[in-house]
Amino acid sequence: MDETIEEGRESVAEGLVECVPNFSEGRRPEVIAAIRDAVAATQGVRILNVQSDADHNRFVLTYVVPESHAVDAGMAGARAAAALIDLREHEGAHPRMGALDVFPFVPLGDVPMARCVALAEELGARIATELDIPVYLYEEAARDPKRTNLEYVRKGGFEGLRETVPNDPARRPDFGPAAVHPSAGAVAVGARRALIAFNVYLGTADPSLARAIAKAIRHSSGGLRYVKGLGLEMPGTGTTQVSMNLTNFKATSMVTVMDLIRAEAARWGIPVLHSEVIGLVPMDALLDAAQAFLQLRDFSRDQVLERRLLLEE
Amino acid sequence: MDETIEEGRESVAEGLVECVPNFSEGRRPEVIAAIRDAVAATQGVRILNVQSDADHNRFVLTYVVPESHAVDAGMAGARAAAALIDLREHEGAHPRMGALDVFPFVPLGDVPMARCVALAEELGARIATELDIPVYLYEEAARDPKRTNLEYVRKGGFEGLRETVPNDPARRPDFGPAAVHPSAGAVAVGARRALIAFNVYLGTADPSLARAIAKAIRHSSGGLRYVKGLGLEMPGTGTTQVSMNLTNFKATSMVTVMDLIRAEAARWGIPVLHSEVIGLVPMDALLDAAQAFLQLRDFSRDQVLERRLLLEE
Repeated sequence: MDETIEEGRESVAEGLVECVPNFSEGRRPEVIAAIRDAVAATQGVRILNVQSDADHNRFVLTYVVPESHAVDAGMAGARAAAALIDLREHEGAHPRMGALDVFPFVPLGDVPMARCVALAEELGARIATELDIPVYLYEEAARDPKRTNLEYVRKGGFEGLRETVPNDPARRPDFGPAAVHPSAGAVAVGARRALIAFNVYLGTADPSLARAIAKAIRHSSGGLRYVKGLGLEMPGTGTTQVSMNLTNFKATSMVTVMDLIRAEAARWGIPVLHSEVIGLVPMDALLDAAQAFLQLRDFSRDQVLERRLLLEE
Repeated sequence: MDETIEEGRESVAEGLVECVPNFSEGRRPEVIAAIRDAVAATQGVRILNVQSDADHNRFVLTYVVPESHAVDAGMAGARAAAALIDLREHEGAHPRMGALDVFPFVPLGDVPMARCVALAEELGARIATELDIPVYLYEEAARDPKRTNLEYVRKGGFEGLRETVPNDPARRPDFGPAAVHPSAGAVAVGARRALIAFNVYLGTADPSLARAIAKAIRHSSGGLRYVKGLGLEMPGTGTTQVSMNLTNFKATSMVTVMDLIRAEAARWGIPVLHSEVIGLVPMDALLDAAQAFLQLRDFSRDQVLERRLLLEE
């Protein structure tokens, strides 16, 4: 063929980000629906999931949005939450400091983390200016390294922060007033990698072997950098589980994790039975595994037919 | 969590199909652009590729379209081709019988093949009625088993069919007049599986070994049902290649193909160096490979985050 005109991504200027805001409402379905609808009304938003918990009195909204509308969609949720939730009347088992409590941006596809950090900064500035709510930048967006840790940011919760924010310089927000909002509290806005909840089942009923393998692979005990893991009993099944969170699948891939688990299990003579993913998994994490299995070289993700449809309007 | 409201696919009524029409024009860029634009103007169409060849005097358009607009998009291309291409003035190296020469519908995702057959029938009927062009249903859409084979349908080409269609009952079209259109000829409309061009490189310079492995895996010599394959020399590289077309990756998966090549190569002591995909590959073929490598059980494709975005409006 003489001439190939690749058109798939010519007109593509932007990628998609995933947003997983947590709101302090898990009991009033009409409030949950109103906040969800406010977000969904923003151009380009696609709601993937709404998960609420009455005990925690909290709900988690998962949606995807083009970069250019991500801040507007975030503002729509923050504004609705501030209008509909009063933390003075809120109780629940989960730690929280705001009506909109936590707002992470997660890069998808080729979107760089730096872009999500910039989105977090822009949304944080707007929440502070337009709603008069103090904002803390956390995780990858943190300016204060201690604020990388969300639990540090949220320490004391709504009630505690009412005391500490005005008085403790270490609690001064990144944007907005040095006092929590009377009803809406404070918000943590940040950027983080997609998490993958990945479990591998072993053909042994002995939990000490599952724990030994978990220990070998997880970061905290000397294993792979972006793996958290536990060995768990699976009573009555004759199996055990290595239960993991992969916190950066681009740096520590599912392939590397699986290779190491297989090697460790083989050393103990334990069969690797199967695995499972809980919830959602980014397509790139699975394409990495396909590429590894097939030994695909010189492969561009643009060769995946459906992937070329994702980034277009 | 108490309640999970899965929203991703609630409002989804339809899937996507790929269309790969071949037109008898490879030399006049303004005609190629006009036909491409006519197709692209149909709602929901996303052009993936335009590939033209001046020697063949032919171009291939690749696009994706929601099922409900697939026939309209096909008609737009057929109408533009009939208006702009006169086969009486056409010459080129490639066999052809029509201005729009061949039109295959290819199912994507969960779209059943039967749906693509129905689309082929609907488009065929409209081309016959609205443009007065005879239409032959081929491959999976064929009503006459001999017409499964495109080369049988196209035998004689435009010039030959001008004689045989009116006179030979075996050449009577499935739709439309028993005479080729004076300028636009005749069209083959059909449905087929996505093809994957998949090559595996071996760590041996001896082509007889590559040919032996190709022979073991391909259907024609007793191997896997939906694999066509050849062993090829790669001069000067110290390697050889098993060059394949996978004609139904759902029935004969890339995983099975790779497993068998690895087993055959190991028996000869030949390393499998790497592989390549030429052109586009459906996401499901790679997700199959990821699932196999990771031993994922109870995995729904809806857990792939980006996949849930594909089928929505």
